[in-house]
Parts: sequence; C-alpha cells; structure tokens
Amino acid sequence: MAKQKKTPRPKAETPKGFRDYFGAEVQGRKAMLDIIGQVYHRYGFDALESSAVETVEALGKFLPDVDRPNAGVFAWQEDAEGEKPGDWLALRYDLTAPLARVYAQHRNDLPTPYRRYAMGPVWRNEKPGPGRFRQFYQCDADTVGAPSVAADAEICAMLSDTLEAVGIQRGDYIVRVNNRKVLNGVMEVAGVLDPADPDRFADERGIVLRAIDKLDRLGTGGVRALLGAGREDESGDYTKGAGLSEAQADVVMGFMEARREDGAATVARLSELVGDSVVGREGVDELRQIADLLAAQGYGPDRIVIDPSVVRGLGYYTGPVFEAELTFEILDEKGRKRQFGSVAGGGRYDDLVKRFTGQSVPATGVSIGVDRLLAALAAKGLGETAEEGPVVVTVMDRERMADYQSMVAELRNAGIRAEVYLGNPKNFGNQLKYADRRGAPVAVIQGGDEAARGVVQIKDLKLGAEIAQSASLEEWKAQPAQSEVPRTDLVAAVRGILARTAG
Amino acid sequence: MAKQKKTPRPKAETPKGFRDYFGAEVQGRKAMLDIIGQVYHRYGFDALESSAVETVEALGKFLPDVDRPNAGVFAWQEDAEGEKPGDWLALRYDLTAPLARVYAQHRNDLPTPYRRYAMGPVWRNEKPGPGRFRQFYQCDADTVGAPSVAADAEICAMLSDTLEAVGIQRGDYIVRVNNRKVLNGVMEVAGVLDPADPDRFADERGIVLRAIDKLDRLGTGGVRALLGAGREDESGDYTKGAGLSEAQADVVMGFMEARREDGAATVARLSELVGDSVVGREGVDELRQIADLLAAQGYGPDRIVIDPSVVRGLGYYTGPVFEAELTFEILDEKGRKRQFGSVAGGGRYDDLVKRFTGQSVPATGVSIGVDRLLAALAAKGLGETAEEGPVVVTVMDRERMADYQSMVAELRNAGIRAEVYLGNPKNFGNQLKYADRRGAPVAVIQGGDEAARGVVQIKDLKLGAEIAQSASLEEWKAQPAQSEVPRTDLVAAVRGILARTAG
Repeated sequence: MAKQKKTPRPKAETPKGFRDYFGAEVQGRKAMLDIIGQVYHRYGFDALESSAVETVEALGKFLPDVDRPNAGVFAWQEDAEGEKPGDWLALRYDLTAPLARVYAQHRNDLPTPYRRYAMGPVWRNEKPGPGRFRQFYQCDADTVGAPSVAADAEICAMLSDTLEAVGIQRGDYIVRVNNRKVLNGVMEVAGVLDPADPDRFADERGIVLRAIDKLDRLGTGGVRALLGAGREDESGDYTKGAGLSEAQADVVMGFMEARREDGAATVARLSELVGDSVVGREGVDELRQIADLLAAQGYGPDRIVIDPSVVRGLGYYTGPVFEAELTFEILDEKGRKRQFGSVAGGGRYDDLVKRFTGQSVPATGVSIGVDRLLAALAAKGLGETAEEGPVVVTVMDRERMADYQSMVAELRNAGIRAEVYLGNPKNFGNQLKYADRRGAPVAVIQGGDEAARGVVQIKDLKLGAEIAQSASLEEWKAQPAQSEVPRTDLVAAVRGILARTAG
Repeated sequence: MAKQKKTPRPKAETPKGFRDYFGAEVQGRKAMLDIIGQVYHRYGFDALESSAVETVEALGKFLPDVDRPNAGVFAWQEDAEGEKPGDWLALRYDLTAPLARVYAQHRNDLPTPYRRYAMGPVWRNEKPGPGRFRQFYQCDADTVGAPSVAADAEICAMLSDTLEAVGIQRGDYIVRVNNRKVLNGVMEVAGVLDPADPDRFADERGIVLRAIDKLDRLGTGGVRALLGAGREDESGDYTKGAGLSEAQADVVMGFMEARREDGAATVARLSELVGDSVVGREGVDELRQIADLLAAQGYGPDRIVIDPSVVRGLGYYTGPVFEAELTFEILDEKGRKRQFGSVAGGGRYDDLVKRFTGQSVPATGVSIGVDRLLAALAAKGLGETAEEGPVVVTVMDRERMADYQSMVAELRNAGIRAEVYLGNPKNFGNQLKYADRRGAPVAVIQGGDEAARGVVQIKDLKLGAEIAQSASLEEWKAQPAQSEVPRTDLVAAVRGILARTAG
C-alpha cells in the first residue's frame, strides 16, 4: 500500500539564475542610476519607463549572442478570449526593442528627434552560470529620428562624461568607435559582399562579424582560423569558419589592425582599405565627421578613439558602433590579472522602428551594463561602502516602550537614522549584539535608575570596538566609549559622536 | 487557390493592461519613491530588492481579492532538464510573499528583528479595465521577527510620517487601525468561531470578513444582507450570505460600529463586545497598547484612529491591521464627488514565513500603493509639474555643428540642461517648433553673420509666448524676448533668463 504523501513545505529559494540584493547593494546601485540619470537628463534626454512585459510579436528576435544555446526570453501565452487564442507575452530582454515599439506607438505625441533614457531590469532566459544572472539592470540613452552622425558623437561624449561622473577616472576607460559601413566596405573589397545582391554571402559575413567580435578572447590567430576553414577550441568543439581565402582574410585582418595613433590617421588608413566601395567610403566619411566633432569638443584619444576592431555582435546595427571598456586590471576568480573589459556598448540601428511602421527611422543609442559597472567600481575599491547602521535605542524596561519610542522619534526628527530594539528585550547582551550586527554607531541605554535621574547612557560603539582591539586594561576600565548625559541632551550627544565618526 | 500570406508587420502596442510612463511621470514617481525611501531608511529599515521572478511554489496562494474572477499571476514553466520537468516560475504579485521567502532563505545572515523596505513593480494577471493596470508600483516596509505590537505601532507612525513627507496635509488622511483577534473574539461571541475547532465555520467567517471589507461600497444594509441570507446586486448577480441569525448579525454589526470619539473609548467598547473570548481579549489588549504607544508619541486621532470597521480582505493577517485613507473629496470620472479612499494598508501576518520553515515568525508591515498616491496628489494639484525642457541650441550652418556642440557642452558644464537640434536643420521654423514642443525655456541662435561678429542670439521662449499672447504690435516688434550677447557671455545670459523663469 502506497504511503499517503504529505504536501511538502515550499523551498525558500530564488529561481535558478536570480538573486536578491540587500541594503548597501541596493543603495549603491540606486546612487549610480541617479548619477547616470542626471547626466543623461542634462544632455536633454527624457525619462521613459515602458512596461516590463511586451508582446512577443513586438519584441521580435533581436537577442544578442544568437549563437549561444538556450538564449531566449521568458514568455507565456495569455488566456484565450472565446475563440481567439491568447497573445504571447514576454519579459523584455533589453530596453532597445521596447523603445522601438514605444516610438512607433506614440510617435505623433513625441518630439522628433526624441532623446530618451531608460533604466531598469531586463530578463534573459539563458542557462545561469557563476556570476551570470537572468535578471540584470541596463541604463540606456537613445536618440530616435536624428540621421546626423552628430547624434552618434553626442552619445559617445555623453558615455565618456557618464563614466567619469560615476567615478571611473580618465585613463581607466576608453570609448572605442567604429562603423559597420566601413566593415561592409572591407567585406566588399574582400569579395564577401555584393552590393547588387545584399543577401549573397550573408552567412559568411555573419561568421566574420562574430569572429572579429571574439578578437579579445581568441587573439589574431583564432580569428584568422575562423575567417578561414574553422577552429577547434580546447574542449575539442569545432566552429565552422567563413571559408575565406588567404587573400580575403588578409583584407579583413588588415581592417582590424587599422588603428593608428589618432583618429585622423586611422580614418586615412581605413580610406585606403575600403577602396572604391560606396558604402565603405560613406562609413569612412561618417567616422571622419565623428572624429572631427569629438576632437573639436576636446574629447581626445585619452577618452574616445576610432578603433576598427570594435564590431559589436548585434545584427541590427547599421552604422557607427561604440563600446566602452575599462582598461585597468583586476584579478579574476582564479587570481589572474586581466582587463575588466566592456561595460557599455551601442550604435546606430536605422531599421528597428521600420519593423512597425514600414518607414525607416534613424536611431542611435548606448546601453550601460549597470551591474558590471558596479562590479568594476567595487574591484577598484570605489563601490558601495557598508551602510551606516541606525542608532539603536535599547529596551531596559518593556513597560517604558513609549519613552524609548519618543527617543527615536526625537533622533529621527533631527535627521538621524534611529530605531528602538523590537526583539525580546530580556537578554540585554542580545540587544548589543543586534546593534553590532546592524553596524550601529551608537547605542542608547536608559534603565529605571537613569530614568529617575533624567539621564541616558550613550555608548559609542565604534570607539568601543577600537578600544576593545587596542586598549590596555586601564583604558578599558575607564570606558570612555560610554558616557552619561542628561536626557534633554540626547540628540546633541548622539550628533557629537556621529560627527566624530564621520570626520 | 489560397493567397500566400505575407508576414504582417507587428503591432506597436503595449500588451492589454500595461502602459508606458513618460518624462515627468517617471520623474514624479521617482521623486515620491525617493522621499518614501528616505523616511523608511531613517526609521532603521534596510533596502531589499528581491528578483521580480519567483517560483510559483514560493509565492503560494495569497493573492488579495480571491473572490474576483481572473485574479492570478503571470506564470510559465521552465524547460525540462532531462527527465525532470521544469519549475513553474511567476512574476511577483506583491512584495510580501517574496519577503517571506527571502527571510526564510537568508535568516541566518539577517539581523533579528529584520526591518526592510522594498519598492518596485508587481504584476497581477487580472482583467484590465479603465485605470486598472496589470503592472503597478508598491512600496513596502515590514518588520520580521518582532512579536511586540510596538512594531505595529511603529509602522502606523511611520505611515503617517510618510504620507505627510510626500505632501499629504495632516487632516487630508487618516490611518485606521483594527485587530483581527478582536474580530475573531466577536465571531466567537456570535457563535461562528469555535476555539476548540478552528476549522469549523471557516467559510462563514470568510464571508463575514469580505462583507465587512465592503462596508464603504455597500453600506450597512448591504453588509447586513451578506451576513444573513445573501444579496442581489444591481446587475441581478446573487452573492451567497454567511447565514447568520439576526442576533448573530447584530453582534457583528455592533463590532463594526464600535468606533468612539477616541482610542481609549473605542477600546473600552470593544472590550464589552468580546466578552470572555480569550483571543478577543488578547486583541483588545493589543489595540490598547498600540493606542497608548501612539498617544504617548503624539499621534492623536487627527492622524491615527482605532477603527473596528477596518478588516483588510487579505486572509493571512493574524493580528493588528491598518489602512491609510485619503479623506479629501475628488471628482470621479463621472464628475461625482467621492472620497479618494485607501492608498496603503497592512497588518501583522505571523504565519507567512512558517510556510517555509515550519517555525512561526512574527511579522508586520505596510504596503503603499504608489500609483494611487501619485494620482491622489495629482487630484489635489500637488503632483508632477511639467518637466523643464532643455535649452535648445539651433543649427543655422550644418558645417559648424562642432561650434554648436561646444555651446551645449559649456551650458551643461554649468549645470544647465541643454541640447543641440539634431533633426534636419534646413527648415528653421521646425527647429523653433521643436524647442516649443520640448518646453525649452531658451533657444540659442548663431548664423554665419553672428559667428563672424562673435555673438549669439538668445531667445527667451517663455517671455516670447507671454508677449505673443498679450502684447501690442509695437511691443511685439520691439522683441524684448530676443537679445544679442557676446558669445563669451552665453552661459551668463542663459542663466539670467532661467533665473527669471524660476523666480
């Protein structure tokens, strides 16, 4: 006879690939988002918050990293309404696809050009891994309806300003700019793009694009192999190559290595490489304009460079592409030094709104990976600091809870973070342990005796910890970390200690 | 022969029941969340951001309004891993169920009591209707691990402080407090709760609870009908009643009408009503303590009252319950005056963490409906103001884009929101129309002639609009709204106009 099953207790677990953020983590991210938002706003960008949920139809298939297995969205079907099957809905996987939908939907009510910024979580239905989460924050700025590359140059300048505003020193980052049209010109010269038949060689070009994008990871040898027959990685997996001849591959490699000492020289070199390709020359001209605009505004190669090795994997870019990279070294999980790498990227995508409207609408923008940027600041020791705990008013007499509540109310009204201990007050040691765990700078104590005399004990917990670590027995006995003050001086006394701690 | 179908263009639409928020709407909500977060933080609450996605198992079935059709969550099943079927995941429907999961999961790393606040969107898979959205913001504060009603009193005081901090005047709101235990005591007296067999009459009690919760809408007559045989609404739908006798219903109605001029008097009346019921007396005692604590801290009946008609529909409350209501009148969509109603609610729920751990963990908290509160402030004319547009630098010579970019860079560096016009500059009228649409306070103009003379034209657009509305032709011709200043005085001149506008 089968045993009767009892309903098991639910597991207290986040779903795989999701996590919770506590206290200082939340505050640190908020502080960063606030700063980024201020820079974007000062540049004339308006806030937009679209819904987290979109129809699958509106989102389309523009996921980055399409060659990765399990890439996808979280999607579900609405209940049917009568005969009509329900729509498929999904969580947004980035902030760009929703912008295209918003612009197409509201374009008659929006200014043109429309500069907008957006920040919030996005969701990817990917295989979770160490440090790889399925919900993460992005912070985007895009300009829709501006065909001029001045819009691209502006985004690059703003990206540079933003990184410095959140605390990345000049010299610790670089914004790299390239242009897809130049790459297309090079492809044309290499014989894998036929302007008369754009669909021809599309697969080869896809492989070339992804190969160049992997330069950092695979090195020139690896990229070269992918341009040719293909490449076997350490695990033995074989990736099919683009099948380019040696001469063709030389052209592409020459493009990737075209970076010179400054923007003008790089542009000159690219101009040679694209030869007579119409699209290539257009791309070179755009890069030249961007370089000129940025130079005129004082954004030198210490901040923004033209770099032909940047291609960005995303299929929808149509012109300038850019990427911000942090150039300082950190230790990876195995203790090896490596550059921190990319924290933001973007480019021009002139066809995304067209999906909805049929009319081409120029657009360009950037997305900052907020969580990566926070991790970078933390690696530099510049990130979140432990949150300042509240002043803890302890409870000596349970019956006098109203008195203790009055104390915290006074402290709060003076702008001081404060709370009364709300656990079981019986064991006073537990109250001090709690204050310690909360990172409280001060504990306030008032027993019946002190209440009768109209005084309170003020315990400087940080000084107490310092003394406990370093002081002699005599000093310890003198207990300067605890003092008795008149009840009426409570706020002033606490403020004095907080000033010392902050100073 | 069937015609071949072309893939249709995707519709540019938010899913039904979702919406987008633009500019000042986003900024206004952010400003409110910032203020609420500051109050919560000053009270010693720590920020928590849990993932938007939970397992369906962890969320449990605690949806409010369970008697409404189509109530539910957005849920989907993960891909299977080999033989193992995938987990069911769902978007959180509130911030309380995730807190219970987080506390159960991380309790060894968290202080006890654990005060936490959380803010963010929640999702309900409900039938959308006018003004009813399927994604909306909540802003919660909860204390986990504090059995004392001092924790409940603190939440009520903080709620009162928060409402005033966001701009609701004292007198325009009231926080109402009740206790489920008192209601249970009354049920016991009325004979629909048997302490020896708590499951008996559970259905009847559910009906009573929901009936009381509908007092505002149905009036005493409607509630009384639901306590008895049942009630037919205007549409002819019949709702089954609790089947109480006249005498039993009298007891329940007496409870709802037990509110007296102050907390002490109300508590005394409730004490009579619960008679010898153990749980009822416990509840009355808790209410007395809460009333005493709040009175001692100066929260009088102009801010917080004991009100037995508050029951909160949610099934999981176990003790004190509270609700904040805005008492001023607004005009509804049909132009009728009505009270704005509830904007926040909460209570004690001692069994929610127990689902995971098996051990009862006391918890109490409040949830503010941020979108409703924003709507309330807007109705009072206190909400978002139209966002200040950026200074717009117009483009007279496309070739001198770098000059215009330098101007906006100077303005931004001076902290002034500014942008260059990035649309097609050919039609200058369009540039001014754009500046108008952006709500720009100032337009900056520099043609080749002005550039040669080292000057810029500064157009005060707000003054221009005033003059256009009211000025005579002579004044109009004098054009005081536009002035020429040396290029080097650009920032000072713009700042001067902004100061006038702000003043």
